[in-house]
Amino acid sequence: MVQDIISIRDLEKADIENALLTAADMERFAEKGTTMAQGKILSTLFFEPSTRTMMSFQSAMNRLGGKVIGFSDIKSISVQKGETLSDTVRMMEQYSDIIVIRHPLEGSARLAAEVADVPVINAGDGANQHPTQTLLDLYTIKKEFDTIDGLTIALMGDLKYGRTVHSLAYALSLYDVELVFVSPRELRMPHEVTEHLKEKKTPYREVVNLEDIPKVDLVYATRIQKERFADPNEYERTKDAYRIDKSSIRLLGDARIMHPLPRVSEIAPEIDKTPNALYFEQAGNGIPVRMALLSMLMGVNR
Amino acid sequence: MVQDIISIRDLEKADIENALLTAADMERFAEKGTTMAQGKILSTLFFEPSTRTMMSFQSAMNRLGGKVIGFSDIKSISVQKGETLSDTVRMMEQYSDIIVIRHPLEGSARLAAEVADVPVINAGDGANQHPTQTLLDLYTIKKEFDTIDGLTIALMGDLKYGRTVHSLAYALSLYDVELVFVSPRELRMPHEVTEHLKEKKTPYREVVNLEDIPKVDLVYATRIQKERFADPNEYERTKDAYRIDKSSIRLLGDARIMHPLPRVSEIAPEIDKTPNALYFEQAGNGIPVRMALLSMLMGVNR
Amino acid sequence: MVQDIISIRDLEKADIENALLTAADMERFAEKGTTMAQGKILSTLFFEPSTRTMMSFQSAMNRLGGKVIGFSDIKSISVQKGETLSDTVRMMEQYSDIIVIRHPLEGSARLAAEVADVPVINAGDGANQHPTQTLLDLYTIKKEFDTIDGLTIALMGDLKYGRTVHSLAYALSLYDVELVFVSPRELRMPHEVTEHLKEKKTPYREVVNLEDIPKVDLVYATRIQKERFADPNEYERTKDAYRIDKSSIRLLGDARIMHPLPRVSEIAPEIDKTPNALYFEQAGNGIPVRMALLSMLMGVNR
Repeated sequence: MVQDIISIRDLEKADIENALLTAADMERFAEKGTTMAQGKILSTLFFEPSTRTMMSFQSAMNRLGGKVIGFSDIKSISVQKGETLSDTVRMMEQYSDIIVIRHPLEGSARLAAEVADVPVINAGDGANQHPTQTLLDLYTIKKEFDTIDGLTIALMGDLKYGRTVHSLAYALSLYDVELVFVSPRELRMPHEVTEHLKEKKTPYREVVNLEDIPKVDLVYATRIQKERFADPNEYERTKDAYRIDKSSIRLLGDARIMHPLPRVSEIAPEIDKTPNALYFEQAGNGIPVRMALLSMLMGVNR
Repeated sequence: MVQDIISIRDLEKADIENALLTAADMERFAEKGTTMAQGKILSTLFFEPSTRTMMSFQSAMNRLGGKVIGFSDIKSISVQKGETLSDTVRMMEQYSDIIVIRHPLEGSARLAAEVADVPVINAGDGANQHPTQTLLDLYTIKKEFDTIDGLTIALMGDLKYGRTVHSLAYALSLYDVELVFVSPRELRMPHEVTEHLKEKKTPYREVVNLEDIPKVDLVYATRIQKERFADPNEYERTKDAYRIDKSSIRLLGDARIMHPLPRVSEIAPEIDKTPNALYFEQAGNGIPVRMALLSMLMGVNR
Repeated sequence: MVQDIISIRDLEKADIENALLTAADMERFAEKGTTMAQGKILSTLFFEPSTRTMMSFQSAMNRLGGKVIGFSDIKSISVQKGETLSDTVRMMEQYSDIIVIRHPLEGSARLAAEVADVPVINAGDGANQHPTQTLLDLYTIKKEFDTIDGLTIALMGDLKYGRTVHSLAYALSLYDVELVFVSPRELRMPHEVTEHLKEKKTPYREVVNLEDIPKVDLVYATRIQKERFADPNEYERTKDAYRIDKSSIRLLGDARIMHPLPRVSEIAPEIDKTPNALYFEQAGNGIPVRMALLSMLMGVNR
C-alpha cells in the first residue's frame, strides 16, 4: 500500500481494488462505529473551505473511533504571519497521526506529503486532484453493479475543466469499460486525457447532445459553471441542454445517475425518488471509503 | 415519542413530561459522562451563528459519549453554490445519526425534518420556535419547585417579539399555572397567544410596571432590544424600568429569577449571588435536557 | 498544586517541577492515547484566533481521552450582544470541566479564573502572559539537557515586546542558569525583567550582535516584527543581523536552537535538518506538557 494518497494516478490497480474491498468491509461499522482508531488524531488542514469534504472526513474518522482537530479557514492560521506550508505541516504532524490537506495551489498536497512523516491525504489541490472523490465514485459503481468491468459509462457536462471527470477517466482506464463523453464543443475532454485513453486502449466516443447518448449503464453528470462562458445566453442554452429531468430520463432508460454534488440545475428534483438516482447514496459512500483510507494509512486496520 | 423536535406545540403533555423525567435521569451522567451514544454522530447545521446553543448541544452529545461534526457559518457551505436546503440536509444525514438545525427562515426546520430520514431537532428557525429552550425552561422550573402546577409565573420584557416567551406561554398552558405578563404597552403579549390561553382556560393578567407585579413564584425576564423603539429615549426609559436590581428585588420577595441569556442590563450583577438568581443554573440545565432529547430520538436510551 | 494556570509567576518552583515530571510521564500516551479524561470536556474560549495554540490544546485533550468544544472567533459569540466576559465564562463552565481562554486584553484570564468554579488555563492575554508556552519551553530544555541548572542560555530577537522571552526569563530565574540577551539596542530586555534577575541573583549579560554571543548551550530565537520599526530600512538590517543560517551556526557551535514558531526569516530552512534544530520538537512538546496541565487541574491524573 502507498504511504500517502496524493493523486489517483499514483495508485496501482491493486491499491485501488484493495481500498474498495476495505471500504466494503467498513460498511458494517457505519451504524455503530468501531474503536479501531481509538486514541488517534486526524488533522484537517483546509486552506480553502470545503465543508462537504471536511465533514465527510470528520464523520469517517469519528466512526473509526478517532478524534479530529483542524482548521477550515486560512485567516486563522499563522500563514498570515508569513509561515511556509512546510512549517505549518511540520507543526501539525506533531499534533496528529494523519493529515488531510486541501489547498488552492496545485502541488501543495505532494509538498506536504514530502515534508510530513505522518501519512497525508489530498482533499483537493487546485485544479489538480481530489483522489478520494474518485475512489468513492469507483466504489459507488462497483457497489451498484457488482463490477466495473463491462460497463458503458457516460461522463457529462464540463469535461474540459472538471477535475472530477478527469480523475475518474484516468481511473476507469484501469478497467475494461467503454466511455462516452457528453459535452458542448467548448468543454470537450482535454487532449491529454483522451491520449491517455488511447494508450490504455480504452474505447471512448464523444457526443454533443444528451439525445445522442447511446445505451449506457451510468451517466456521471457534473456542474456546468457560468464563469466558463463569455456569453450568458450561451450558458443558459447549454445548462438547459444538459439537464436531466423526467423527459430526458426516458432517453436514458434505467441508466443510473451519479453526480459529485452540489448540483444546481443539472438534475431535476423529480429524479431524486426514481431508481435511477444514485447521487445521495454516492455522497454517503464517502464515509466507508474514507474510513478505509484513513485506517489503512494509519495502520490500524487489522 | 415524536420523531423530530420542531415546535413545542407539536408535543403532547406526555411527551414533555417524559422528556423532563429523562433529563432528570441524565443528571447522574453530567460529571462522568456515559458511553450510551458511543459511535453515534450529531451534525449541527447552523445557518446562522449561535455559539451558546451550539456549544450546549455539543456538550450534551459529548457527555453521551457521541461525536459532533457541523458548521456554524453559512459562508463555508455549498449553499453559496446554489445548493438547496433539502440537498444539504440529504447529504448531511449520510454523515450522521441525528441533525440539529438553526436557520434564519421560519419553516426551515420542518422542511429539514420532512426531507431527512434521521431525527431533526430545531435549534431556532427565525422568529418561529426554539423548542429545546422551552424544555430547559420547564425543566428548570420543575427542578426548582418540584412541580409546575400551582405556580404563579411572571413573563417580563419584550413579550411582543420574544420567541422564548411565546413558546413558554404555550407550554405553560398545558399546566395548572397563573401567568402575569409584564411589559410596556408597545410590547404586549400578542393576541394569538392570549387567545390560546383563554381557550386553555389559563388565567393571566397584564401589568405595565415591575412595581405592579403581584406575589409570584418566578419572574422570567427577557431582553428588551433597542431596535424595537423608534425613539431612543423611550428605549432608555423602558430598559431601566424593567431592570431587576437590589431595590426591585425587595418588591419581588423570594421569587426566583430566570433569563434565557445573554442578558445586557435586565438583571444587575448584584443579583447573581442572591438565592433569587436561577439563570446560570438554567443555562446549565440545557445539558441534561439536550442529552435526554438526543438520546431519546436516537433510540440509545434504554 | 495551583487551581488555575494564569501566570508563570504564580507558580512555585515545586509546581513547575511537578508539571515537568508529569509531562515526561505523559509521553507514553503520546502514540496510543489514554482514557484518563473520558467523559470530560474542555472548552476553548478563544476571543482572538491562535490556531496553533488551540490545536495543541485540542490534541492534548483528545490524547487524554476527553472531548473539546469551543469557539475561536469573537464574532460568533454573544459578546456582540453586549454580554460581559464574566457571563460568558459562567455560562461556559456549565458546559465543561475545564476552560482554556485566550483574550486580547491583559487581566482577562485572571478575571475568568476568579469567576469560574472550574479550572482556567491562560492561553495568552494581551502582552501579559502565556504560561503554557513557558512550561513547554522549560520542558524542552530539560528533555534535551536532562537538567536546566548549569546551562548558559541566550534569548535573542525582540526582547522588549516579546511576551515569550519575558516569561521565560522569569521562569529561568528559578534555576541556576546564566543568561545572555541578544538584541538591537531599541529592543533590549525591559528594566522590570532585569531588576528581577538582579534580585534573584541570576547572572545575565547583554550583547548587540549575534557574533558577540559567547559559548552557550542554547539560543532561544524570536521574531522581530516589522511594526516595531519606524524606519523600514532599519528593520531590514536588523532582521538580517539576527538571522541564524549556516554561516552564523558556525559561531554557535553545537548550541541548540529553539523558537516559539511561527518563524519568518529568523532561522534559515537549511538549519532544520541540523542537530542544532530543536524547534519542531519544541512544538511537539506542547502536547505532553498540556496533557499534564489539563489532567492535573481536572484531577484525573492518579
